[in-house]
Order: sequence, then C-alpha cells, then structure tokens
Amino acid sequence: MINVSIAGGTGYTAGELLRILLRHPEVNIESVISTTSVGMPVAEMHRDLLGETDLVFSDTFRQPDVLFLCLGHGLSRAFLNDNDIPISCKIIDLGNDFRNNPVFNDRNFVFGLCEQNREQIRTADSVANPGCFATTIMLALLPLASRNLLTDEIHIHAITGSTGAGKRPADTTHFSYRDNNISVYKPFTHQHLEEIANTLTSAGNSDLPQINFVPMRGDFTRGIFASVYTRWDKSMSESAVIDLYEEYYRSSPFVFVSKQPISLKEVVNTNKGLLHIEFHNGYIHITSITDNLVKGASGQAVQNMNLMFGLDETTGLKLKGSAF
Amino acid sequence: MINVSIAGGTGYTAGELLRILLRHPEVNIESVISTTSVGMPVAEMHRDLLGETDLVFSDTFRQPDVLFLCLGHGLSRAFLNDNDIPISCKIIDLGNDFRNNPVFNDRNFVFGLCEQNREQIRTADSVANPGCFATTIMLALLPLASRNLLTDEIHIHAITGSTGAGKRPADTTHFSYRDNNISVYKPFTHQHLEEIANTLTSAGNSDLPQINFVPMRGDFTRGIFASVYTRWDKSMSESAVIDLYEEYYRSSPFVFVSKQPISLKEVVNTNKGLLHIEFHNGYIHITSITDNLVKGASGQAVQNMNLMFGLDETTGLKLKGSAF
Amino acid sequence: MINVSIAGGTGYTAGELLRILLRHPEVNIESVISTTSVGMPVAEMHRDLLGETDLVFSDTFRQPDVLFLCLGHGLSRAFLNDNDIPISCKIIDLGNDFRNNPVFNDRNFVFGLCEQNREQIRTADSVANPGCFATTIMLALLPLASRNLLTDEIHIHAITGSTGAGKRPADTTHFSYRDNNISVYKPFTHQHLEEIANTLTSAGNSDLPQINFVPMRGDFTRGIFASVYTRWDKSMSESAVIDLYEEYYRSSPFVFVSKQPISLKEVVNTNKGLLHIEFHNGYIHITSITDNLVKGASGQAVQNMNLMFGLDETTGLKLKGSAF
Amino acid sequence: MINVSIAGGTGYTAGELLRILLRHPEVNIESVISTTSVGMPVAEMHRDLLGETDLVFSDTFRQPDVLFLCLGHGLSRAFLNDNDIPISCKIIDLGNDFRNNPVFNDRNFVFGLCEQNREQIRTADSVANPGCFATTIMLALLPLASRNLLTDEIHIHAITGSTGAGKRPADTTHFSYRDNNISVYKPFTHQHLEEIANTLTSAGNSDLPQINFVPMRGDFTRGIFASVYTRWDKSMSESAVIDLYEEYYRSSPFVFVSKQPISLKEVVNTNKGLLHIEFHNGYIHITSITDNLVKGASGQAVQNMNLMFGLDETTGLKLKGSAF
Repeated sequence: MINVSIAGGTGYTAGELLRILLRHPEVNIESVISTTSVGMPVAEMHRDLLGETDLVFSDTFRQPDVLFLCLGHGLSRAFLNDNDIPISCKIIDLGNDFRNNPVFNDRNFVFGLCEQNREQIRTADSVANPGCFATTIMLALLPLASRNLLTDEIHIHAITGSTGAGKRPADTTHFSYRDNNISVYKPFTHQHLEEIANTLTSAGNSDLPQINFVPMRGDFTRGIFASVYTRWDKSMSESAVIDLYEEYYRSSPFVFVSKQPISLKEVVNTNKGLLHIEFHNGYIHITSITDNLVKGASGQAVQNMNLMFGLDETTGLKLKGSAF
Repeated sequence: MINVSIAGGTGYTAGELLRILLRHPEVNIESVISTTSVGMPVAEMHRDLLGETDLVFSDTFRQPDVLFLCLGHGLSRAFLNDNDIPISCKIIDLGNDFRNNPVFNDRNFVFGLCEQNREQIRTADSVANPGCFATTIMLALLPLASRNLLTDEIHIHAITGSTGAGKRPADTTHFSYRDNNISVYKPFTHQHLEEIANTLTSAGNSDLPQINFVPMRGDFTRGIFASVYTRWDKSMSESAVIDLYEEYYRSSPFVFVSKQPISLKEVVNTNKGLLHIEFHNGYIHITSITDNLVKGASGQAVQNMNLMFGLDETTGLKLKGSAF
Repeated sequence: MINVSIAGGTGYTAGELLRILLRHPEVNIESVISTTSVGMPVAEMHRDLLGETDLVFSDTFRQPDVLFLCLGHGLSRAFLNDNDIPISCKIIDLGNDFRNNPVFNDRNFVFGLCEQNREQIRTADSVANPGCFATTIMLALLPLASRNLLTDEIHIHAITGSTGAGKRPADTTHFSYRDNNISVYKPFTHQHLEEIANTLTSAGNSDLPQINFVPMRGDFTRGIFASVYTRWDKSMSESAVIDLYEEYYRSSPFVFVSKQPISLKEVVNTNKGLLHIEFHNGYIHITSITDNLVKGASGQAVQNMNLMFGLDETTGLKLKGSAF
Repeated sequence: MINVSIAGGTGYTAGELLRILLRHPEVNIESVISTTSVGMPVAEMHRDLLGETDLVFSDTFRQPDVLFLCLGHGLSRAFLNDNDIPISCKIIDLGNDFRNNPVFNDRNFVFGLCEQNREQIRTADSVANPGCFATTIMLALLPLASRNLLTDEIHIHAITGSTGAGKRPADTTHFSYRDNNISVYKPFTHQHLEEIANTLTSAGNSDLPQINFVPMRGDFTRGIFASVYTRWDKSMSESAVIDLYEEYYRSSPFVFVSKQPISLKEVVNTNKGLLHIEFHNGYIHITSITDNLVKGASGQAVQNMNLMFGLDETTGLKLKGSAF
C-alpha cells in the first residue's frame, strides 16, 4: 500500500483527490492536512464522503510515501520551505509553483502531463501536475507539436466550469451571477499560456507560433470545453492527421479521438480526454474536453502517482461518468 | 413627478427597484444612497443599467416624496434613528423591521400586501413591504382566510431562487454548490411565519391553525414556487372555492387563478402572482408562484407607491416576462 | 463471471447500467438488446462510453445468467411473453410491471429494495427493482414502519431530476422550459404510491395512514430530494428515533443518517441514500436523497444482482460521487 | 393605432413578439394566426400571458397595417404565395427567407439591422429581420466595416441559448443533455455567415476577409455571447477605435460600449446590445452580447416596426432586464 498525505485538505482538488483515493485499491490515506480545520472530520467538510471515511483534518503528518500539495497557487513553495520533506517522499504538486520553474533544492519537478512525459514521470520524485485549461488544450495540440506541425497562429476559445475558480466565494462564482451567464476573462493573457507553450515546444515544436487564447466562464460546475484551430495547408491529408492522433494516443488509456462531435458531459466525472477533429476553411479544428477536477487536476495527479509507483496507469481511475 | 430616494442602493432589491423606477413614467429618482460606494456610477454596480442612467451613489439626500429602504433586515430602524425623516416623506421599507412591529415614532407602518390592504395603503405614510415567501404563501391562502375557512393544519413547501439570499456571497449561494442542487433550510421555523400568521388572522381567520412550512433552496435565480394544502371537508364545493378566489382577486390586477397547472417561469420578471387549485384526498391543494424580486420585493414596493400616490396600481409595472 | 444481457439498451437506465457493469469486476456483458438500433455501437448511443466498450446493439441474445429489463413501464411483461426465458436465467426488471403484481408464470418477483428484502433477494430468481421516488421515500420511512410507528398522515414533497422522465423529448423536458423552472405534477396521485404503501405495510406497519405525496419537477438532471414528515407525539425520544434509524441501516452499506442537513449533490452519481432527521412542531421531519439513476434505478439493480449471485453487496458500486 | 397580425403564432419568436406588443402603446393586435391551434386561447400556449390577453389563435386575418411572419426558416415565401398580401400591408419577416434574397414580387425586403439601415427601414414596405447570431456579430464589427477596416481574417466564437433552437423538442435541447453541457455545431459553416458578409460589405468594407465562425450551444435559455477578434496593426489608436464605436452608435438607442468587461445577463430580456473592446497580441478583441429573442428577433422586429411607422425607435422597447 502507498501511504499518502494531502496538504491543503479542505479545497476542491483535495476533496476530489479524496474521492478518488478512498476507492484506490493500493492507497492508504495517512493524513489530510489543514491548518484551518484541525480536528474536524473530513466528511463534514466534503459532505459527500459521509459514510466513506473517518479521517480527521490534522496539522501534523508523518512522512508518507507521497505527498499531494493542494494548497492553491503560489503556496506550495512556502509549504516546502516550512516543512522538511525528505527526497524519499515523492511530491505531486497540484498548484502552479513548479510547472514553469521546476527546481526546488534537490528536487526537479517533472511536468506531469502523462500523455507526454510518461517515461520521465515513472522515475520522478517530484511532479508538477498541469493546469486544467493547459491539459485540455495540450491534449488537442500535442500530436501536431510532436511532428513540428504547429507553424501558424493558434486560435483557442475554452470555457470552464465554476469549480475551476475554487471554493472561496467570489462575485463571479455567486450563483445569482453565474447561472445562465457567460463571460470572458483574462483574454490573451491567461497564466496557463506559459506551460502550454513550454510543453508544445518540448514536445518537438521548435518554433512555436503565437497562441491566442480566450478563456470563458461557463455556467456549469465541471469540465472544460476547448475549441482550437490553426491553419492547415500542410501536405498531410485529413486521414493522415487522424491517424497521427490515433497513433499518438494509442498507449494512453484515457485519451480518445471521437468520430462524432463531442459534448462536454461525455467526460464529466472521468479522467478521460476526448478529441474531435474536423477540417474547414483551410483550418484544422480540434475540440477537446476534460473534467477540470479529474483529468485537469486530481485524477491526473493520481495517474501520475500510479506511474511513479509502478502501478497500472488506470488503477483507481476507471471512474463511472455522470453523463447527465 | 414623484421624487424618490433609495437607501441601501447596492443590493439586489435596490437594483430591481431601479430597473423598475427608471422606466416608471411618474417617477424621478433623486438619489441612490450607499455609504460604501459613494461616487460610483450606479450602472457600474448594477451593470445591466448601462446606458440607462447617469445616477451616482451618494451618502446624502434631500427629502424626497418617498424613501425606499433597501437596507437589509434589521437595519431600517437604525437608519430612521440616524436620519430625521419628516412625516411628509413617505417611507416604504423592504426590510422586515416593521412588518410585525409597525410603530416607529409617529409612523405606523401599514403591511403592504396590496391585495389585502389596498385601501389602508392608499392613505398610509409608511408601508412595510411583505417578505417574498410570505407574499407567495399569503396569496395562496388569503381568500380562504377572508372567510375564516382555515380550520385545519396547513402544509407548505416552498422553494426559492438564489436572489432571495441576497448579494453577499455565501457557501449556499456558491455556484459550485448550488447548481443542480436542492436543500431545505429553517424547516418549520422560517422567520416569515409570523407575518403570514398575522396577515391571515387580520384577513378574517380568527383562530388560525398550525402552519407547517418547509422552505427549500432551489437551483434557479428568480422566483418562489409554493405548494400549499389543507384539509377540505367543508361544505363548499370545488367550483364555489374557485369562484371565491376569482372574486377575491377580481380587483387585483396582478393576481390570477390558472385553470392549468402552473410553472414558475410563467411569472418570472413580472409583478404577477399565479395560483392553481386542485382537490385531492380530502385536501385543497394550491400552488402559488411569484418572482421574489418583483412581486416579492421591489415590484410590490412600487405597487405600494402607486397606491400611496393615487396612481393606477399597475403604473410602471406591466413588465414583459422573461418566460424562459 | 456473471454473463449479463440488457434488454432495452438505448434508454437512460440501460446506459447507467452499462456505465456500472463495464466496471464491475465480476460481470461480462454478453449482449445489449435494442430492436431500434441493431448494429449500432453502444458507445455511439451512450457517448460517454467511447473508449470503454466495443459492444454493438443486437436483437438476439443467448441465455445469460441474468437479464436486466430496461424497457419502460409496461413493456417487461410483453417482452417476457415474446421471449422464452428459462427460470435458470435470473431477471431484474427496472420497469414497474412486477412491483405490485409480482407473479409471471412460474416466476415470483421479489421487490428489490435491498435494505428491506435483503434475504429474500439473495435467493430470488426474479426481482422487481423499485421506482426512484419510491426508493427515496421508503428509505425515509422504513425504520418507522418496521416498528409500526406510522400512525398519522404522512406528508411528502419530493423533487426529481429530469432523467427520471426518460430520454424521449417532451415539453416538460425541453431545456427552454425546464431550466430555472419548477412545477408540480400528479399531486396526490403519483403511481409510486402503491409500491410505497405495499412496502411500508409489509415492513410491519399494519394499518398504514394516508400518504400525501406532491411530486415536483426540478431543474437539475440527477437526483431526488424528498421532504417527509408525520406527527410525532410518540413516547419515543428523539435520540431513540435516531438510534432506531442507525440500527435499522447498520447492515446496509449504502444508507447513512447525517447529523448535518443534507443537500442533493451529496449523493449524485453514487448508490448512496442519505437521511437527515429533525423534530419540529410535534412532527418528525425526514429529508432523504438518492440519485434517481443509481440507487433509484440501475445502481440498485446491480446491488440486487450482487445479492442474487452471492457477491458482496457493494461490488462494483463504490462509485465516486460527482459532488458538484 | 397600428393594427398588427402575426403569422406562426405558436413559436418562440411569436410568443416574444406578443409579450412586447401587448405592452406597446401604439399597437392593436388584430390576429394571431396558427393553422395548428385554431380556437385555442393564446395564453394557453404562451402561459406567461395569462391575464394579459383574450386573443385566440385563428387561421384567417383581415389585412392589418403590418404583418409579422414568425413561420420558421423557409416558410415565409410559401405563406406569401398562399396569401395575397397587398403592398399597403407592411411585412416584417423574422425568418431567413428574404435576408439574402430580398425580392418577392413587387416587394423588396430591406435588411432590418436598424443600426445600419435605419433610414431605408423608415420607408420600407418589407423588412427582413436579421438572424440572432448575425445581429450579435454584426454589431461587433459594423463600425470597423463602415471604415473599410476589416482587412484580416476574423475569428469568432459565439455561444447561444437554447431558445435559439426553437420550440420543437430535439436531442440537443433535451434538458438532460443540455444542462451543464457545452458543444459546438456547424463550425465554420453556419448559415448566418452569408448575411453577416453581405452586411459588412454593404456597410462599406469592400474586400471582406475570411470569417471563421464557431457557433456553440450553451446551457442557458436566452442570449448570445460573441467573442470576435481580428488583427489590429492599423495606424488607428485604441482610443480612436473606441471613439469610432461610440460615434457609430451615438444615434442608436440600444447599443452601448462598455468600459468594463461584459457578461451575458446584462442584456437578457432587453433589446440592448452591449460591446466591450480590448487590444491584445496585435488583435482587437470585441465581445458582444444580445438577447437572441429580443434584439436578435422579436425586439428588433418591433424596432423595425417603430421605424417603419414613424414612431420613436424605442417605443414599447424600454424593457426591464431580468439581470439574474
């Protein structure tokens, strides 16, 4: 059994991680750390876990085999400074602290996009779990990047569920505002652009074109729907492109290319990524969907853990979709 | 023209009042008072008003013809203590301060349920605007109460939209929580029970039976749907009951009895109240719907103002429903 | 491995059954029967199953170990008349054909409410899976019924998600109608009343009082929230009642009594039933929640299968909730 | 008073037209034509109109002053062939029959985008009301087109509410499918592209670049949110562009440029169009919002009627927004 601790246990990604790990056949959750809720039963905070766990939030933890950091962006580095974690304890960071700046003391965080970095992750002691927008968009573009085929500007609109904005109430997550509403935020400047660019470059696209990304807030709770296109005047035929995608993801148990157009709920509550590809107007148009809390966060984190501990990548992650 | 000031201008009921009064042909909005947003254009706070008003929040106001208090429950009394409002300035309080305790200095707040108290409201200097749950439930029961026909226990479930919980973000108005969710709160103990009981008694039901009221939080923004039943072994026939309702509301331009079952969106964004009546199992079952922000708050407040100033009751209130 | 066939494979309950059974460690799905979609890949109909199955709809089937009937109410009897199913093949009917009329030829359908009939189900060859409203309401009342404590009228409002209305588009499941809307249907006359009454009686409540049940259509997709109350002037203390519930469900792995008020999403996408009990106004008030497609249909059907085949009741049913 | 008849009276746009016209001070609705619901009270079909009209659907009509065609795309031409409408009766077609093919016998349908064609509409006998996507997108681009500034490819994602898909139930408007879901449809090929291109060209953009338009289905009922960008390496400064937009819409009472980012519900249930403009990455990015049933259909139709009959353009159209 893998002994697990979770830091930042009260937030959404920690809750989702608990939902998954409590059902994971190879995991023992040793401690769920929260400085604000010490002594409270975990199932009082994450109410759907009633009847599933007697865990209680604590502020201390013994060194586990793996520590998940669910602390909110920018807080992981501080946590590691304040807590002496030996290198024998693996770390999976769900924040953005180490995605673009991977070094911390003797640790070097591998970017945890399993579909790209599967082999490095297997031997990593530290993994920086990708962002949710980034994951959805990178899955759409990785096969092309791997062949250095991204040569023209990339146009992206992606719409996210409210859980991506975290648990702390805000004006833009107030139900009265958000229900039946749509808005744009951080157009062309979203912070995930850097990890997307780094990833596509490292995947083999040496001279990356400009990426234009308009993020939108959707009036749903889970999932990201990305619509991505770039000019396609390459010599490669449509069927050859589809084959490239199929081939690229052949060894990836969670990513599939759909012949039919896709809709977001086909992946909600699963660790899957679905893609659909069409060609129009001299463009290749790729739609890509994930659940931001699963494949975009806690599910991918467990997928990383599975790889790091030599388990089958899908262990504990064959989740029943909610579909509706 | 009626000169109007609004105290507590940044909240939901003030915003809705502004939406209505800016289109009211007999009203001039003189000031919108907010201690927290002085100097901010009103349309920056209530964004849908862009292009419709140049008003700016202020913390001072000249004595208007009528002052609307949109301050939040319990704050109206304090406001009146802090501000010397002459009796020549009419007051309509949207809070709950004066509904059950109507006296303040030389003012005596008439309970502003127009369908019951139309005549007293016409001559009132001060009106306590009813609560939203209370309005919806009282409309369902007033005709029976007026004949002293409420003799057996009353059973009520009513489900409210999120705007009823106000603007301040809370765990139960967080989109990630509320979307696709249902919950019960304050079962059998909701604070509107007192004004409901007082109203039904004053309407003519001398010996009121127990009222069992289970409020629910719905995953929509506007409206209240109330399902009300009480034993019906009276000698009165079903058609006579329908006639009683039709007759009771004949002079009320906003309340209608529907022969068809009703659904909430039939009244959303209007000042209407719709009722539907069926008889089953020895019970009379009444469903009642209103928009909590309009008939349940700001619309009814304007209806009261119309009555107080001798205008047609519907002036400025023939609102296009949103229907969808 | 248990060989399974599913009749009526294109509907919602069949889809949900497939989502569960494809992950069930002891099941082999042999055929998914549909007369209208023969030859179509199952994952083209239930799109979220892409990448999870190569099954194709067929109109023939070899005798499996167990046959699930997902045919729509009233069609199971016809199917059994048209197809000669030997008694060695167990049957679990998700329709309402055999809930109140359990005999068909040499089969006697046990009512498949596991929490009540666990032992009979273990040896049954045929099970009539309960209705979704019925399940949610019976879970709220079974412990009281088992002690013959239901002596006064029972008052129920229960609100259901849209998937309860099935896949065929209808005016009341049109998004433009249903979104942000609430309505009542079949008040006091819902067809589940009979199986509720039969169950409570057979549980030990010899002289059942009148049950007043107002079903409501909610603007969400999954789940049923039931609010149930009945007069409580019994000698039994509140804590004794809570103990009774805890005791009654001690051996039931999916039903829990929550000390906190509950909200619907705490059970969505799981096979759980959650209850919360309060005492007010001389009433006991019980709120009860289930996912109508899981515990209210396909999950409970698998729970029944597990019992019938001697498996642990929870096999394949420890589902990660969607929570949001 | 203007005598009005409406053909195709049972659909969404007819319902919305009725909501507006019943409150219009200069209109008398003479007949609401439906071949399928003759004799049914209009308020039984459009339930929110209960108490507001005694109109009954008919299949005959006297020649009104103006006839609105709400027949569904492709059916207006047939209606005019079947019914002899004298040229003295003005026609406003809400379908797409005459937008790109404006001639019918002696009628020449003016394209009814008031902000562009205000003067021609004033003297028109026939108007082709623009499509909802088209309206929202054209409002975003008209000022640039008027100066021939659209020289580079235009990139558009626009997301629409379910009412845009009409009343007939379909798989993609089923609540169980649509709620909390997002999908793309007709990417790069939507039928509104032609009227958009025609309009921008006729506005003054002689050599229109390629328009890439990805329409999306949103999980809300009303409104369209369009996100539009095109390369901006022009000599014109950002403030000069804002001035251009302000100037272009100065005489348009319903279109406003917001300094703040906009969200869809700021225009829902109004005839307004709101725009917000930013500059990033060498692009001008314009977000544009309308209510698809009001400014995108029936409200704009009434705006056209007002112009055609010499009324103030805003008569009957100063609608209270629903805001939530």
